[in-house]
Amino acid sequence: MVTRMVDLRSDTVTKPTEAMRAAMANAEVDDDVLGYDPTASRLETEMAKIMGKEAALYVPSGTMGNLISVLVHCDVRGSEVILGHNSHIHIYENGGISTLGGVHPRTVQNNKDGTMDIDLIEASIRDPRGELVYPTTRLICLENSQANCGGRCLPVEYTDRVGELAKKHGLKLHIDGARIFNAAVALGVPVHRLVEAADSVSVCLSKGLGAPVGSVIVGSKSFIAKARILRKTLGGGMRQIGILCAAALVAIQENAGKLEDDHQKAKTLAEGLNQIKGLRVDVAAVETNIIYLDIVEGSKFTAENLCKNLEEHGVLVMQEGLLSVRIVLHHQISASDVQYTLSCFQQALTRAQDENGK
Amino acid sequence: MVTRMVDLRSDTVTKPTEAMRAAMANAEVDDDVLGYDPTASRLETEMAKIMGKEAALYVPSGTMGNLISVLVHCDVRGSEVILGHNSHIHIYENGGISTLGGVHPRTVQNNKDGTMDIDLIEASIRDPRGELVYPTTRLICLENSQANCGGRCLPVEYTDRVGELAKKHGLKLHIDGARIFNAAVALGVPVHRLVEAADSVSVCLSKGLGAPVGSVIVGSKSFIAKARILRKTLGGGMRQIGILCAAALVAIQENAGKLEDDHQKAKTLAEGLNQIKGLRVDVAAVETNIIYLDIVEGSKFTAENLCKNLEEHGVLVMQEGLLSVRIVLHHQISASDVQYTLSCFQQALTRAQDENGK
Amino acid sequence: MVTRMVDLRSDTVTKPTEAMRAAMANAEVDDDVLGYDPTASRLETEMAKIMGKEAALYVPSGTMGNLISVLVHCDVRGSEVILGHNSHIHIYENGGISTLGGVHPRTVQNNKDGTMDIDLIEASIRDPRGELVYPTTRLICLENSQANCGGRCLPVEYTDRVGELAKKHGLKLHIDGARIFNAAVALGVPVHRLVEAADSVSVCLSKGLGAPVGSVIVGSKSFIAKARILRKTLGGGMRQIGILCAAALVAIQENAGKLEDDHQKAKTLAEGLNQIKGLRVDVAAVETNIIYLDIVEGSKFTAENLCKNLEEHGVLVMQEGLLSVRIVLHHQISASDVQYTLSCFQQALTRAQDENGK
Amino acid sequence: MVTRMVDLRSDTVTKPTEAMRAAMANAEVDDDVLGYDPTASRLETEMAKIMGKEAALYVPSGTMGNLISVLVHCDVRGSEVILGHNSHIHIYENGGISTLGGVHPRTVQNNKDGTMDIDLIEASIRDPRGELVYPTTRLICLENSQANCGGRCLPVEYTDRVGELAKKHGLKLHIDGARIFNAAVALGVPVHRLVEAADSVSVCLSKGLGAPVGSVIVGSKSFIAKARILRKTLGGGMRQIGILCAAALVAIQENAGKLEDDHQKAKTLAEGLNQIKGLRVDVAAVETNIIYLDIVEGSKFTAENLCKNLEEHGVLVMQEGLLSVRIVLHHQISASDVQYTLSCFQQALTRAQDENGK
Repeated sequence: MVTRMVDLRSDTVTKPTEAMRAAMANAEVDDDVLGYDPTASRLETEMAKIMGKEAALYVPSGTMGNLISVLVHCDVRGSEVILGHNSHIHIYENGGISTLGGVHPRTVQNNKDGTMDIDLIEASIRDPRGELVYPTTRLICLENSQANCGGRCLPVEYTDRVGELAKKHGLKLHIDGARIFNAAVALGVPVHRLVEAADSVSVCLSKGLGAPVGSVIVGSKSFIAKARILRKTLGGGMRQIGILCAAALVAIQENAGKLEDDHQKAKTLAEGLNQIKGLRVDVAAVETNIIYLDIVEGSKFTAENLCKNLEEHGVLVMQEGLLSVRIVLHHQISASDVQYTLSCFQQALTRAQDENGK
Repeated sequence: MVTRMVDLRSDTVTKPTEAMRAAMANAEVDDDVLGYDPTASRLETEMAKIMGKEAALYVPSGTMGNLISVLVHCDVRGSEVILGHNSHIHIYENGGISTLGGVHPRTVQNNKDGTMDIDLIEASIRDPRGELVYPTTRLICLENSQANCGGRCLPVEYTDRVGELAKKHGLKLHIDGARIFNAAVALGVPVHRLVEAADSVSVCLSKGLGAPVGSVIVGSKSFIAKARILRKTLGGGMRQIGILCAAALVAIQENAGKLEDDHQKAKTLAEGLNQIKGLRVDVAAVETNIIYLDIVEGSKFTAENLCKNLEEHGVLVMQEGLLSVRIVLHHQISASDVQYTLSCFQQALTRAQDENGK
Repeated sequence: MVTRMVDLRSDTVTKPTEAMRAAMANAEVDDDVLGYDPTASRLETEMAKIMGKEAALYVPSGTMGNLISVLVHCDVRGSEVILGHNSHIHIYENGGISTLGGVHPRTVQNNKDGTMDIDLIEASIRDPRGELVYPTTRLICLENSQANCGGRCLPVEYTDRVGELAKKHGLKLHIDGARIFNAAVALGVPVHRLVEAADSVSVCLSKGLGAPVGSVIVGSKSFIAKARILRKTLGGGMRQIGILCAAALVAIQENAGKLEDDHQKAKTLAEGLNQIKGLRVDVAAVETNIIYLDIVEGSKFTAENLCKNLEEHGVLVMQEGLLSVRIVLHHQISASDVQYTLSCFQQALTRAQDENGK
Repeated sequence: MVTRMVDLRSDTVTKPTEAMRAAMANAEVDDDVLGYDPTASRLETEMAKIMGKEAALYVPSGTMGNLISVLVHCDVRGSEVILGHNSHIHIYENGGISTLGGVHPRTVQNNKDGTMDIDLIEASIRDPRGELVYPTTRLICLENSQANCGGRCLPVEYTDRVGELAKKHGLKLHIDGARIFNAAVALGVPVHRLVEAADSVSVCLSKGLGAPVGSVIVGSKSFIAKARILRKTLGGGMRQIGILCAAALVAIQENAGKLEDDHQKAKTLAEGLNQIKGLRVDVAAVETNIIYLDIVEGSKFTAENLCKNLEEHGVLVMQEGLLSVRIVLHHQISASDVQYTLSCFQQALTRAQDENGK
């Protein structure tokens, strides 16, 4: 029987704290579709201020936040968006921007650190003047930190340069900032500075910040006005939503300051795992709360065995392909959980090897 | 200064009760995207059972519930849906089924009671056999009760006949059951009987039932499996959503039994309003909790004056066009509120007439 | 064995004349995708002039002409178009404006003469100011003459009034002018006068005008520039297309002047058919080259029998439903063909009755 | 004054020959929308036979051929197609598969020879079993010869391997065979062998084959039946289209055998150009009728100067970026034209250098 549970699959798995639950129980609410819910408005105002943008909108998920943002910027038929070939929007959001929005994606290769070469981005922009056979590039998307590139961060200077490129060509810049607070902490800059060049940002409340549900998108007033209509079209307009927004307000208070600890725990865990024979982690690449762990080739077990064995110890991680595992730290993982995880890995690995040895 | 507030704009305006708030504070939750939230699952199981269907899915809004349902049934390019020209899906959901889903709507005129003539529906079905110039009819949508037709109800026999027609032609039947519980109460039948012929139903939790947020769609297991993917695509997948589902479970318990009272209060209010000179209500048509009030032509005031004057007394109603007003009853309107509303109407009307008389 | 063929199914069935064939054999052509084909340009210039518009574009079909026009006017996601419930675009073009273009159609009932009541059109326009639940009306479509309403014509005054309404609300007006030359002839006005109020018109070359293939859309220069790109997207950009345009230029010369004869032949045939016992034609409603023929209820045969019997005499007509038949006149039907058709109808009818009588 | 014209911009620029013109003047035609045009049917039957497929459909352009093919294979919402990042469909067709069809493209890097690594293709396939965040891969597209990779050819073995991969994963394989006849000639295999593994192929009639207009798509009977409906939806259904099909039938007869000459002329021209100081051609990579010419870095002129100077001699080529030029051979370029072109290049280059030297 599992007596201890350490859930490292994602930072989305956290449970609401007592303070969040109290806030939800006492939230002042109203119909946010017929008018405005006061708590939702308070959250939106606060997030707009934090991100240094004019306005904000609560949405049920990061997927909807990105979908709305891309579709608002690409509201004319025949639009193309430039984005990383490993970006969350391209890989993990069901192709919604095309499937629902008819937007054509043009991918640029992400480097290992999540960046795309600026000159490759520029070469991908389609000159719209009278050209008969091209869709029109209207948007560039960045992601920061970049989940599918080991949680690595795009520095301010890089983001600014992409912003300048966008401006030069009359394009918009959207940042998928699902984990933008992690990036800001890792880079040691205020989060608003990191998105200064962006026309819109989606920020997840239910990842590192630990709120139960939701994301916020920020941008100009006119962007948010269009986003509000599109949120209704998609079915993301919700009535007394202040309940969930109340929890999110607490989450920002409670957990924004703890992200540095999450990164430290990730570093500790990464170092420990890298010392286990048969496992390899690029420790230097662990910049935030995400670890990608490789099983050394030639090992007698696979990621699948490993995950199964860990699960029997109550340690949950995410299998990624045949020989790779993703681990994500969050505020409900203690230093002791990290040590427990390391010991379980050692045991699971030994056992997985034994199983294969038979 | 307004000292009393009677919000009759919609049954979506209710505030969560103490019991709902307590349930939300104590809800057992988990990540409903990576796996299943236990409270969401409990709500889904219960709603499936109530509606007599195999499976269910919580969604953030009725708009998303209808959008997903139509798109799942019409998942092949070139699909057409037959629906009422006054239906909520056609008029009040941003045209999302076309805008996002590429589904072509074919409308049939709604009669005053919300029905569409069965032979007109049949005549609108496109025979798909090798026809070069037609989209393929794949779905018929009904709405029960029908918001835009005075909250009137479609009887079991009517629904069954449309269901038979659908089956005969190999079509699916979706029911927009935003207020299906009101319909069931008004018709005196179990709600599952009312949707027996339907392949899918969307049911609103945040209207008469009084939950803060959300709808549930029900249908076969395979329908719900497809709906779950599409919910993710639209951005309606939410993490620890059990919070809101806990409130909804309480809402069903607390308020499903009170809908009959809402209808009775609507009847009383309708009769009272109809006796005020200058106003006219078709009292017999008030079958559920919705009242459409007409200002008698030749009156010296408009719906706009009237609403403004009522607002000053704290009575909120919804203006519908130049000479019409919509009023919706719900569980947070007391018998005394009804009497207060009647007296305010009398005063507001007198004052509106005075203003116009000057 | 059939010795004589009278094809009255549509005015699209005509064969190219000797002059058209000669023109095609000698057409000066170039690559109309890389640049401009001189003969295509000549046709476009001529048609723009005839229609009184700035510019024109050759397209492979009327369906593409309408599709491009609607999509150019509704190039922003969330657009709604108002059009007749019996219009060709709504009924006979596969729902392409939704299926491919995501445009939401809002239908207004066509009266028997093809008109839609102006106040019903106005009531269907969605006020776009900040409204959360509506798509945005961007376009009104008319059709002239209206195929599905007996080929009847919309007068200049009516078209002008719809144009004014469109202007008042900031909407565009498109006219499906597949048979606009027929309408102009029937109304006795220059064709450009009939489309003065329109922002775009699609004109069919292969119906009454008798060209082998194609339509032309006309409008402002900026409309046509966008249309050219969309034509490429749809795959309607064609290389040495001057071949077909050469035939179209001849067709305009040869046949525009013969449309009046087609209408006269239609009148003669309609009157003759109406005198046959068991058949009924609203002769007064035969304004152009289209006849709708009803089989009197209680007759002992159906449209299907009738058509089959006629086919054995080489007379081809189009069955429309159980008891209705569509007949279309064109320049390759002679006065003698009309008489032959009348006699065949009489025989076919007698025989069809006999068959049913057995 | 230009006295000689050598148009090397594309193989789409050829003019119809006398035999084609005669065939068009005498073509037997009928309404191919109401039924079947006999000459179109003849062309379709012949092309199906040549390509070794059950059925075929004439379409106005290669863009429409590819668009229809992708959309038929991806007829369910949420489909993804895997295709080369340099493929014509991805780069030069306006993003139509997304813009109009909502299909999500997933690109794999094309190697210099046009191939995509098979293991990269396989790694890009999304396992559809119950996965919540992925679109469903339904199609792989190849292009042969590959325009944007120097006209290079994919061998039979490569195509077969991709076909096996597709089958293994339940996917369809479409080949953009705009220049598939060139590929077959270059590889020395029958064209049908080259597409044996494909579920559909689009073949261009107006490139190397020299017909004035059109492409044909081939596949199974059920594929073509769906394609016919979609062609109508897109507006590609054309009436007496036998005219153009008659020319295409002659084109196949006249020019399929001349493609080898085109390749030889391309080789000769490529070798000559490569000997001109300041220009560089990878002669070994000139496998078919397309030459990509690079201006040596550090040269005192650009592709733009060069093209302008050539144009003054009547030699038309296509500028591709700052320092690259595309040249395409076809049956209306003689051996003497090749020599003339070489001498013009030498002169234009000298003059372009002089201009820059001033």
